[in-house]
Amino acid sequence: MNKITIDKNKNIPLYMQVYSQIKRFIENGSLPGGYKLPTIRSLAKELGVNNITIINAYKLLEQNGYVYTKVGSGTYVCEDIKKDDEMEENIKSLDQGQFALRKGMINFASSSPNPELFPVEDFRELINRVLKRDGGYAFEYQDTKGYKPLRESVKEFVKKDQIFTSIDNIQIISGGQQGIDVVSKALINFEDAIIAERPTYSWALASFESRGAEILEVELQKDGIDLEELEDKLKKFKPRFIYVIPNFHNPTGITYSEEKKKKLISLAEKYETYVVEDDFASELSFTKEKTLPLKAYDKHDRVIYIKSFSKVYMPGLRLGFIIAPERFVSSFLKAKYVSDLSTSGLMQRAFDLYLRENIWVKHVESIKQVMYERFSEMGRRLENLKNYTEFEHPKGGFYFWLKLKNNLSAKSLYSKCLDRNLMIVPGDIFFMGKKENSFVRLSFASCEVKEIAKGIEILGEILKGYFDENNNVYVPII
Amino acid sequence: MNKITIDKNKNIPLYMQVYSQIKRFIENGSLPGGYKLPTIRSLAKELGVNNITIINAYKLLEQNGYVYTKVGSGTYVCEDIKKDDEMEENIKSLDQGQFALRKGMINFASSSPNPELFPVEDFRELINRVLKRDGGYAFEYQDTKGYKPLRESVKEFVKKDQIFTSIDNIQIISGGQQGIDVVSKALINFEDAIIAERPTYSWALASFESRGAEILEVELQKDGIDLEELEDKLKKFKPRFIYVIPNFHNPTGITYSEEKKKKLISLAEKYETYVVEDDFASELSFTKEKTLPLKAYDKHDRVIYIKSFSKVYMPGLRLGFIIAPERFVSSFLKAKYVSDLSTSGLMQRAFDLYLRENIWVKHVESIKQVMYERFSEMGRRLENLKNYTEFEHPKGGFYFWLKLKNNLSAKSLYSKCLDRNLMIVPGDIFFMGKKENSFVRLSFASCEVKEIAKGIEILGEILKGYFDENNNVYVPII
Repeated sequence: MNKITIDKNKNIPLYMQVYSQIKRFIENGSLPGGYKLPTIRSLAKELGVNNITIINAYKLLEQNGYVYTKVGSGTYVCEDIKKDDEMEENIKSLDQGQFALRKGMINFASSSPNPELFPVEDFRELINRVLKRDGGYAFEYQDTKGYKPLRESVKEFVKKDQIFTSIDNIQIISGGQQGIDVVSKALINFEDAIIAERPTYSWALASFESRGAEILEVELQKDGIDLEELEDKLKKFKPRFIYVIPNFHNPTGITYSEEKKKKLISLAEKYETYVVEDDFASELSFTKEKTLPLKAYDKHDRVIYIKSFSKVYMPGLRLGFIIAPERFVSSFLKAKYVSDLSTSGLMQRAFDLYLRENIWVKHVESIKQVMYERFSEMGRRLENLKNYTEFEHPKGGFYFWLKLKNNLSAKSLYSKCLDRNLMIVPGDIFFMGKKENSFVRLSFASCEVKEIAKGIEILGEILKGYFDENNNVYVPII
Repeated sequence: MNKITIDKNKNIPLYMQVYSQIKRFIENGSLPGGYKLPTIRSLAKELGVNNITIINAYKLLEQNGYVYTKVGSGTYVCEDIKKDDEMEENIKSLDQGQFALRKGMINFASSSPNPELFPVEDFRELINRVLKRDGGYAFEYQDTKGYKPLRESVKEFVKKDQIFTSIDNIQIISGGQQGIDVVSKALINFEDAIIAERPTYSWALASFESRGAEILEVELQKDGIDLEELEDKLKKFKPRFIYVIPNFHNPTGITYSEEKKKKLISLAEKYETYVVEDDFASELSFTKEKTLPLKAYDKHDRVIYIKSFSKVYMPGLRLGFIIAPERFVSSFLKAKYVSDLSTSGLMQRAFDLYLRENIWVKHVESIKQVMYERFSEMGRRLENLKNYTEFEHPKGGFYFWLKLKNNLSAKSLYSKCLDRNLMIVPGDIFFMGKKENSFVRLSFASCEVKEIAKGIEILGEILKGYFDENNNVYVPII
């Protein structure tokens, strides 16, 4: 095995140092699948550390799917490790994912409403008003922090979500992904620990990884993140932050209970860390319960709130904002400057009017209605596939998250769907270490009701084929 | 001193490891100014390395302004080290730098033409054409690589600069700064070495630093980077890339000779590294010589070409492109995706028409004319200040770079100018390690000819005051 180095003066726990290095050796292939790791005792001796350090490192490697233990034999490197180039494959498939171009395809993949639903006419008018009013100044560099009137509008806008903040804490960004990137730049140093839900939005993970973070996953339960597992990891790893999507989660559709939201913040306070909240769709609730963002419960100023305008309004705006705890305001500003200097002034000025004059209200009402119809149709149709899949009905957002029965491979299902001009998203891209291969994400964001009916019908036929083929159909009891 | 750890298995030279760690201790203040470093022999013994390793590490620390040597006494930490928070100060002053708002201020700081010169009317029309033609699709997520027709237009556009490429090698970005950020994300790993000109654009350095790069500076000469020093550093450090601004350099205004451009590429080829070319204004030549980008001479596919549309066209477009060597195409795509998913489709579509229908030609002609007039005025007026300053006339772009005589402090000059409502940029922000405090950058980009005359007059009065006060006026011989 390559040499592992330990630095007792570093601010990183020893077993984390051992974990990081072995993980890297596995990922870069210098420890191949099937390789037997040194025994705990021998490695502890070699490094001059306690056995418990190595035990903890190996346990973490196992939890994250890098190694497995054979009782009485030892610890071995797994065969099916996520390689660097896998992310590239994902992006390539996403790039092919310009499926709107492939005629007649039913699109259960896209995470934003179809362009016909965008409030284009309102924006055309607003853009022209801004150009007439501001001329060349609309094309000047904008303040790095964001166009001040827009920050004022945002301050008013978030009051509907029980968020009360100052314009000094608002940082305008070019969409939610940039928000994640800016926060990563400002907060993550090489080898810092980060906690994320398992599964979660994969391009957040990519951003953390790109900064050299060690990502630790914590399981999602039906009402939010597993708080016990979380507390355990908070204690051990002192992570820089916990990244969560508390409302209408991507990909699982899960919404945190109010209780869990509050407890999550208390834990962050207790362990002196922060929660990064990714809010892409909390406007789109299908129930009468109020689904407030985590930030609404943030008494301790522990929540970094990232809001995207891409999904509910229009992706092409490239707009969003961060509400930052006081202490991060200037580091986020610097990270934004390094990223792209500033966000388009024209879009900021137009969106300011859109918020300021409450034009958004009617759009949100109408898109909520449309999404509710699509959600209902998909949910109703999916009920017929309960022989083959397990799932919950989300309380809002865009996604159904299906667990395929009999460990059916989601990738194989994906290919078969593609053959029938149906695009779904295999769930493995939303996991880090140990892959889960039997989940799929279905989005109803960009399909008409009729298409949804057709798409689920196709999906059902394909699933039926699998289960028939394999002679292990689940016969309904009635 | 804190403990230094050495890892002989790492792919990083040992003295670089020692250098990085001591540098970090100095920057984070754990080694204060005036602290005496251990002797070469004792540190070498402690770390179990050769004396020459420590000698090289200390030499590099000295070159980069972190330590100084007292002959016969030892090596000491410098007092005036650039701290992390200095960058924040810079950004704050930049933020105050929304000087257009302060009435009557003469702005020699801004790096882009005043908004009155922007082709706003053309864009208003193009935006409306696009919205009519594409509707909601103009606000959809765009391809991460960029809107294909725009990539086609860019391919044609760069032929004027003798660049012949394929649309597969073109990556659309949201402005030049994002180009630097994307390249950094894709290419720089923690502790990688990077070479940059001394001085250079400070926000490129900030981006490299943010990735944990070790930045090595190489002096600029009148005709471009010092090739001897460069070759020496290429040999020693195997940097990931060399970052340069070969035409109308920011801040110095220097343009590389054709010969140096060619030799730079040959060196990159010889030492198997890459050159990142930042082109923000090569359209704006004031001479009849052709000033081609480095990329035009790139026979070996060693140049990563970043082109910004912000300075010559409009900052608010948030548009630019990278022309990437084949081998980096997919890693740049991934880095772009992580950064912000994609660049505004509306702007890409409008700019596509702007290029495709050759509307840009008349704009470039007219802005070149205006800039030439401003350049001439500033140059002519500055000739009267030769008692106090040294400078060259640039061949294009926006900047005069003044060396103040008698080591006059640029920061002090900056304050006095501000008192008289004149904004200049003190040059120290463009240096990394060892600061130079007697340079100022004057931009003529956003001032009318009359304002330039007035501004230089004020500058002259202030300078005269200094030199009179100090009783060391340079009396002209005639």
